[in-house]
Amino acid sequence: MSALDNIRVVLVGTLYTGNVGSACRAMANMGIRKLRLAAPNLQNSWDEGERLAVHANDVLDSREEFASLEEAVADCVAVVGTTAREGLYRQHVKAPRDCAADILALAETGPVALVFGREDKGLLNEEIAQCTHLIRIPVDKGYTSINLAQAVLITCYEFFAASGSYIPPHEKAPPAPQAQKMQLVKNWSKMLMEIGFMKPEQEDHFMQGFHRVFSRGVVTKDDAALMLGVARQAIWAKRNAANAAPTA
Amino acid sequence: MSALDNIRVVLVGTLYTGNVGSACRAMANMGIRKLRLAAPNLQNSWDEGERLAVHANDVLDSREEFASLEEAVADCVAVVGTTAREGLYRQHVKAPRDCAADILALAETGPVALVFGREDKGLLNEEIAQCTHLIRIPVDKGYTSINLAQAVLITCYEFFAASGSYIPPHEKAPPAPQAQKMQLVKNWSKMLMEIGFMKPEQEDHFMQGFHRVFSRGVVTKDDAALMLGVARQAIWAKRNAANAAPTA
Repeated sequence: MSALDNIRVVLVGTLYTGNVGSACRAMANMGIRKLRLAAPNLQNSWDEGERLAVHANDVLDSREEFASLEEAVADCVAVVGTTAREGLYRQHVKAPRDCAADILALAETGPVALVFGREDKGLLNEEIAQCTHLIRIPVDKGYTSINLAQAVLITCYEFFAASGSYIPPHEKAPPAPQAQKMQLVKNWSKMLMEIGFMKPEQEDHFMQGFHRVFSRGVVTKDDAALMLGVARQAIWAKRNAANAAPTA
Repeated sequence: MSALDNIRVVLVGTLYTGNVGSACRAMANMGIRKLRLAAPNLQNSWDEGERLAVHANDVLDSREEFASLEEAVADCVAVVGTTAREGLYRQHVKAPRDCAADILALAETGPVALVFGREDKGLLNEEIAQCTHLIRIPVDKGYTSINLAQAVLITCYEFFAASGSYIPPHEKAPPAPQAQKMQLVKNWSKMLMEIGFMKPEQEDHFMQGFHRVFSRGVVTKDDAALMLGVARQAIWAKRNAANAAPTA
């Protein structure tokens, strides 16, 4: 069993089923599947919620409902509140990336609640007072109002990343050793003289440029011009094969 | 100017205005404000898009439209494609967290495009072929289909985090030095004997427990029982002040 299985996403006083459905999808994306609704205050039908859950309907269907936050988190070993606000009672708030690993370690020992407040008012002070940990999602100062399902996504994403469940993609082809790279420079030098791109006395100058491009790719306009020149010269050499005498 | 100002979010062949609107809000949350639509294929009216952009309508309203991905990224120094798929042409794909800082460094030198494909089909192979970098958002194997605006959010979040624009919250109160902590243990010991919680010969045993709780908080059932005992005894001592003789 993964520690992620011990995560409970707890939505408090949620107003719109669409946000619940979108949250289910976000949870499923991040390997978190247990949803609790505390004192839901839903203003619309489940049609929208079911539509937005897309293929995460199992998360939505297996939700648990509680009359209050207190009841929803009674069995939890840690209660992690999310808050956009600063100030009173909130001075120990952390960014999710800075505490996900520690909280996930607690989830090895029992259920851990990630608690999200109402769309309009967030968590009330008496709900914040029930939290053992507080997190705030980093957002730009110019636009701090984050959608409920988006907040669920980023929080779950940080726990998913901290869980190590995800193995980052890595390139399967082996890296080129230096000897092969220097052989590449040598053979290109030969080819570039053969097609008339450069003369022997220009070799040092140009091959520094090609070595740079081989090492880091085409970055500058000079890099691009150099490689465009090769294409142009190779075509010219092919079309004028009869009269283009090798320069070396 | 921040490197984030040089980020262009490019949505290719998007089908639903709601996803564009939600993407605008996600971008604004993460300090990224320049949106480009490449060959949009919108199936519904802008009403939904405008509704979901909430207060990020300026991002939506200032969007640029292009007939193709090629035109939308022509001025960019890096074109970063997002792909959920593995395989052909995609072997150099990276997780956003593993490459955001390097790509952001390129954004110091010119516009950088973050490219997102269609809701149903993602980016076509000929579009992937135009990308200088490829990223894949980590998701759970059990549910890999991520909503377009959610993908925009996580990608922008990683660039926002990499930009260092966000200063993580930190506690303003200064940490307690060891001398103060030991004074706390000493004074509590005195108080606990005063209220009849423990006898002098139990001091070593109990104070180890309190020191543990002071150091890491209430973690175990034993910790909670210990602190519940203090509350019970303090109330008892107060109510029986007349007959409760101090034990020390």
